[in-house]
Amino acid sequence: KMSSSNSPCAACKFLRRKCTQQECVFAPYFPPDQPQKFENVHKVFGRSNVAKLLNELNATQREDAANSLAYEAEYRLRDPVYGCVGLISILQHKLKQVQDDLLNAKKDLATYIGPQAMLPMLQHSGYIQQHPNNPS
Amino acid sequence: KMSSSNSPCAACKFLRRKCTQQECVFAPYFPPDQPQKFENVHKVFGRSNVAKLLNELNATQREDAANSLAYEAEYRLRDPVYGCVGLISILQHKLKQVQDDLLNAKKDLATYIGPQAMLPMLQHSGYIQQHPNNPS
Repeated sequence: KMSSSNSPCAACKFLRRKCTQQECVFAPYFPPDQPQKFENVHKVFGRSNVAKLLNELNATQREDAANSLAYEAEYRLRDPVYGCVGLISILQHKLKQVQDDLLNAKKDLATYIGPQAMLPMLQHSGYIQQHPNNPS
Repeated sequence: KMSSSNSPCAACKFLRRKCTQQECVFAPYFPPDQPQKFENVHKVFGRSNVAKLLNELNATQREDAANSLAYEAEYRLRDPVYGCVGLISILQHKLKQVQDDLLNAKKDLATYIGPQAMLPMLQHSGYIQQHPNNPS
């Protein structure tokens, strides 16, 4: 951290302003050697929205927030139509597919070892807690 | 659509400006009866970023873009630290878990019907193309 203590953070460098490391809300999460990370969140969310969001969190949560914003921003710039919602859709589809495959494998297995083949699936694979609103 | 043709869209209403339905980039995707949808994207991304993003897309892609932005914004307001990246993480974890369960079920099945039990999984369940460029 010594080497970067005199350089402005990526945000202040991009915004061409003086960086007071102690007070700058961006400095800990947008180091000068990752300029793209700040440029992405600035482009997608806007500097002031990012600063506002970070300031409203307590210090221990800010790193995760900065990183999740950077992740969303990167996806949105790569895919302006769907952003990371496209990934959510792919993951949901794939999960459904693998759950169906598992159900079929368990049914096949049940023909050899009996109905207890279905039990571990119901207990461990999220079938029971999958739908919090489902009473069963 | 007749009934809302004279009301400003949710964006223009929120911004207290006149809405020229023909030219307003928000009007088709932020109808006056869904004020929260615009308020959310405005709060998270900023009005001008949303307008810029929609304007850079062709008209056929704008509805999906507006809806995916609204989805991301809603998640970010509900969970300021992780936003919808939290959901991605949950889905990735659950997918890994169900894939492991499927692998075990197929291994069990292979003890009864032989190694061909493993083949459909490798072909259909994404084990082969699973991680093209996994960021984690």
